[in-house]
Amino acid sequence: MRPGEGLDALMAPRSIAIIGASQDATKIGGRPVDLLRRYSYAGQIYPVNPKAPVVQGLQAYASLDELPEAPDLAIIAVDAEKAPEAVEQCAGRGVRSVVVFSSGFAELGEKGRAMQDRLRVAARRTGMRLLGPNCLGAVSVADRAIATFSIVLEHSLPAAGSLGIVSQSGNLGSFTMRMASDRGVGVSRFMTTGNECDIDIADGIAWLARDPATKVILCCVEACRDAGRLIAALTEARDAGKPVLVLKIGTSAAGQAAAASHTGALAGSDAVFDALLARHGAVRVRSIEELIELGHAASILLPDRLPKGPRLAVVTASGGFGVLLADAAQAVGLSLPELSEATQRTILELVPFASARNPVDATAQMSSRPDLLQKILSAVVADDRSDVIVLPLPFSLHMPRLRSVYMEALRHIRAHYPDRPVILCVDGPPDALAELHAMGYPTIASFDGCCAVVAALARLQAAAKAPKDASPSAIAKALPLSAEAFRHELGAKRALADAGLPVLAEQLVSNADAAAHAASEMGFPVVLKIASPDLPHKTEVGGVAIGLRSEAEVRQTHAEMLSRVAAKAPHAAIDGVIVAPMAQGLSELILGSRIDPVFGPVVMVGLGGIFAEIFQDTAVQMAPVSETQAMAMLTSLRAFAVLNGARGRRRADLEAAVQAIAALSRFAVAHAESVSEVDINPLLLKAEGAVALDALIVPRTSGPQQH
Amino acid sequence: MRPGEGLDALMAPRSIAIIGASQDATKIGGRPVDLLRRYSYAGQIYPVNPKAPVVQGLQAYASLDELPEAPDLAIIAVDAEKAPEAVEQCAGRGVRSVVVFSSGFAELGEKGRAMQDRLRVAARRTGMRLLGPNCLGAVSVADRAIATFSIVLEHSLPAAGSLGIVSQSGNLGSFTMRMASDRGVGVSRFMTTGNECDIDIADGIAWLARDPATKVILCCVEACRDAGRLIAALTEARDAGKPVLVLKIGTSAAGQAAAASHTGALAGSDAVFDALLARHGAVRVRSIEELIELGHAASILLPDRLPKGPRLAVVTASGGFGVLLADAAQAVGLSLPELSEATQRTILELVPFASARNPVDATAQMSSRPDLLQKILSAVVADDRSDVIVLPLPFSLHMPRLRSVYMEALRHIRAHYPDRPVILCVDGPPDALAELHAMGYPTIASFDGCCAVVAALARLQAAAKAPKDASPSAIAKALPLSAEAFRHELGAKRALADAGLPVLAEQLVSNADAAAHAASEMGFPVVLKIASPDLPHKTEVGGVAIGLRSEAEVRQTHAEMLSRVAAKAPHAAIDGVIVAPMAQGLSELILGSRIDPVFGPVVMVGLGGIFAEIFQDTAVQMAPVSETQAMAMLTSLRAFAVLNGARGRRRADLEAAVQAIAALSRFAVAHAESVSEVDINPLLLKAEGAVALDALIVPRTSGPQQH
Repeated sequence: MRPGEGLDALMAPRSIAIIGASQDATKIGGRPVDLLRRYSYAGQIYPVNPKAPVVQGLQAYASLDELPEAPDLAIIAVDAEKAPEAVEQCAGRGVRSVVVFSSGFAELGEKGRAMQDRLRVAARRTGMRLLGPNCLGAVSVADRAIATFSIVLEHSLPAAGSLGIVSQSGNLGSFTMRMASDRGVGVSRFMTTGNECDIDIADGIAWLARDPATKVILCCVEACRDAGRLIAALTEARDAGKPVLVLKIGTSAAGQAAAASHTGALAGSDAVFDALLARHGAVRVRSIEELIELGHAASILLPDRLPKGPRLAVVTASGGFGVLLADAAQAVGLSLPELSEATQRTILELVPFASARNPVDATAQMSSRPDLLQKILSAVVADDRSDVIVLPLPFSLHMPRLRSVYMEALRHIRAHYPDRPVILCVDGPPDALAELHAMGYPTIASFDGCCAVVAALARLQAAAKAPKDASPSAIAKALPLSAEAFRHELGAKRALADAGLPVLAEQLVSNADAAAHAASEMGFPVVLKIASPDLPHKTEVGGVAIGLRSEAEVRQTHAEMLSRVAAKAPHAAIDGVIVAPMAQGLSELILGSRIDPVFGPVVMVGLGGIFAEIFQDTAVQMAPVSETQAMAMLTSLRAFAVLNGARGRRRADLEAAVQAIAALSRFAVAHAESVSEVDINPLLLKAEGAVALDALIVPRTSGPQQH
Repeated sequence: MRPGEGLDALMAPRSIAIIGASQDATKIGGRPVDLLRRYSYAGQIYPVNPKAPVVQGLQAYASLDELPEAPDLAIIAVDAEKAPEAVEQCAGRGVRSVVVFSSGFAELGEKGRAMQDRLRVAARRTGMRLLGPNCLGAVSVADRAIATFSIVLEHSLPAAGSLGIVSQSGNLGSFTMRMASDRGVGVSRFMTTGNECDIDIADGIAWLARDPATKVILCCVEACRDAGRLIAALTEARDAGKPVLVLKIGTSAAGQAAAASHTGALAGSDAVFDALLARHGAVRVRSIEELIELGHAASILLPDRLPKGPRLAVVTASGGFGVLLADAAQAVGLSLPELSEATQRTILELVPFASARNPVDATAQMSSRPDLLQKILSAVVADDRSDVIVLPLPFSLHMPRLRSVYMEALRHIRAHYPDRPVILCVDGPPDALAELHAMGYPTIASFDGCCAVVAALARLQAAAKAPKDASPSAIAKALPLSAEAFRHELGAKRALADAGLPVLAEQLVSNADAAAHAASEMGFPVVLKIASPDLPHKTEVGGVAIGLRSEAEVRQTHAEMLSRVAAKAPHAAIDGVIVAPMAQGLSELILGSRIDPVFGPVVMVGLGGIFAEIFQDTAVQMAPVSETQAMAMLTSLRAFAVLNGARGRRRADLEAAVQAIAALSRFAVAHAESVSEVDINPLLLKAEGAVALDALIVPRTSGPQQH
């Protein structure tokens, strides 16, 4: 089913039944009834309870069959064991969507997984959509359709607004909604997907992409279960001009272990997830705070005031705050360009002691004279050397005199520079903040948070404007590889050469004469390497010799190598010795591919040697990648400068590297059913061309993994 | 003067005169009078104003001479031009300390600097201490001695508490005080040092180290002007068992530029500052938020409940929060050890569906049954596999029922496990938070913030327990170096060899015969290198040849090199050709020293090649360093594993590396007046021994810099 399809009945229901409705408003079967009534849901509420004719003052029904109509949505608030039957009854009654609060399914192991499968089967049979199980349900704020038992609504319902929240974790989603609400930021819809036996996070994103009430989509993810659906949903949101902000949890080893025991879902590689988001226009945030602040700022600045680049101007009445913001800005990749001479002159004419370059320190004079404030702000906002302006106003809004001075100036700025994004770094009384939001100013309390949000806003704009990813055309499944491909490096390289990767002209020889002959044909110096499926670490057994300069040297080395290897690894099967020309180049890359349990074949590149590992400076992408994407992977390496001719080095043939990455990625897809891993270490880059010096292809021990 | 001496009159004055006292409470000469009265300062207040007999209801004096006594403290709130005279009068009258609010001094250039010097001279003549100029003054919260015009006090005075704040930036200090106050954290003293013409940040730290009201010292620094005084003050705080938490601003290039125009102070290297703090037991924080949260937590946990290590246990009623905290913990270097089998068994007996390893997810059951909560918490807190416990309670305290459940359990835990540090990740009503603080629980609202603080608390404990830095003994000034030392690499290496650094046995020769002779004496293969003061980049002019294997080859190469260099660099002075043995090793280091404008001679080490630069993986310290400190520099490198035998490599001779670093650091100190920079690139590390292959010594063009 296409992501998001059939969710209207869940997200905008005209009638809601509660199976297991309770008189007690603190119980999970009682809280939705209470909340629906308390917040005046306008649709029909049908409590279902076989034992009570009235629940919380509403007429109750003994069973689904007794309802006057098939409800749009049924909430299942019964024990796990009874849930499958309840869901089957809903499907039978023609209910269009259900939410299953109950826990005790796949997260508890095999037996629970079987029960969960029953839920899915029942729902899929009639096309009824199912949210959960083990979830906190959904809320449509504007029409007060509250299908949740989250305690955060006990306190109050969030104001209606344009942030849509979709979360796998119920508590995390609830907490996000609560924080947004406390922060004065309105919410459109809220959905928690829990075990995702039918509706998943991709459904939520896609539905919100079509929802007129939602401008920005906030997403809390623990595990991606289906990359294809997620990509489709992200693409739909991008096409709709709605930013998707993603907080992914379970990124650390400890966090992944905790997430696995929490949801029972396999975690794919975090780096691949990251690459997927970037490739499809979503923006990843690092914390709940950033999720909410960025959502807030984006919802105010959309559709046409996102910063067009990373150039920041800062105007402050305090030098210290200017320095603090300059530090925070640089830490997140923003630049502080010097303002134009005209702007600087204007500022210095107004306040001779000011610092006018950027950050502008207009000194305390600025806030004591309303005319100065307005003129200085206008000059900076009018200067097109910056893409976005940040104005720190610590504690100013708490002082009635300063508050009115600033409000007046800011109203003037909005009226005269309606296209320019200005962000306020400020805390203050809620009514003052609400006034600023209504005027079109995002407000963020912390300095670091403010710069992080500005940087993310610029990334949002870049993602929205980026050309859509032209994925390489579909790759056909390839014929099986020869056994030799898995047996030794020469076999592996031959298989890769067939796939378009550049390799050395090597020969496998079975005696010293053949070795000497091959060497003299290819030209000295040469390298000898032992060929054996049992010796992945050839150097350790004396199985590599380099720089051999004559036939005599080759003969002698061949003999010595065989006896050395025989002594050190007596049980290894020896297929012969590989003779290869000595190759010299400028840099070395490590290329690899493997099968991610969630994302399928992925391709990886890093600088060779041990640095990729120690500095974790590698790039990864779902395969296949185009040459353009492969180049983006290379340029994302911190070590890219090394390849590109830093410090007087010659530039390596990056085009050859890019073709090799793309070719390997196609190979990984074409052989995904039989190859679990490819390692090319190193791929030698020359000034012209590249060549794989060593390679390993690891077979899949079983068929494609199921999960 | 010893840091902190003579500050009692400033920080605990029995009488305060305000020079330039104003009737208008919003003026800088009026606000202190207003605040002293409003917050009931118990000492004498003496407004000084030649034109008004009464100021804000208090008797005013026409001049200092008319005061009935010499006040402990005089506030100077007059224009910059009048300030020197006012300060001189204070000194003459026997005033013990002054605060100069006025700006318009060194931050505005030479003329201002001269006026500022007058202030210093006047103060120093009588030993009167002077705070400022261009500062926001000082506040002693407990005795309500308010010598500031900061607007943050208009709203309210912070509660008295144990955080002492000392800041160079007035606004940053004010903001810190205000945020602490809003956060429910009490403040002892507040001091802003501004241009620091007399009292500096070191004075503030040292005085707070002796102040019984202060337990934790919060420090906002823009620029260190005197490293020696800062070290003395940090040492005093460490000896007093008081943590010093430092927020340094102006760390980025943009921030440093802004700071320079803001205060007129030179910025020393941020990396050296960082190393100085670590070496002397201070802990650096990354944001104002972290400064305040860490100060808050430390003040509650001191003296004996700081976490003894980085092992964290998390107990939560929500899986999602557990995962989030696990991620945040790993990101800051905390570990989440698996709890003991006994603890896990206890938890699973209480809640069969719980995750019991760590993070403990005790599910929503935990908070619905008070008995469970208490038992599970007790089990985790009692388990000594963790050093610190974090309990996330999002929105729980807002629900009266949950609040009372948690309060009861937490009271029980404090009573039964009084020595164990438990941190709550929670926001809530101020009275609930205050209750928790009084019980001994630090509370931190954000997840990331919570883990950052826990990690910093563990660092605080480690810093407090670390053996004191055994600085190498004083280094005598050395005899001047020969001209040759500055002329070419052989001269540089000879000078370094005299200082104990290992170098190759090389020879400088003036003709081909001598080259051949030298080569055959040292044994083939050899290297030839051009020796010239004009050719720092020898390779670019063809001035390096390696791997020469015979006398004939040496002769020929010698001749070719001279003619090649003559053609490419006809104007270069040629001192001859250096003949050196080929050296092979395991790894290469870059060693260097230079003169930091603030910190003096510093020594630097990084992995050789271009990686030190690209990955910014270098370590730096004030010179001299001991061998122990040099080893700490090496182990702090991310690339340390490479040196130490990662991935089957042989371990390099780290002891030789350490001796070279220490020797270079002593050389840098001994020659600080004549040498501005030394570069050893590379220092080749072997399995046994090390050797400098190339070196450069750059002379100081003038004497030591003044600032």
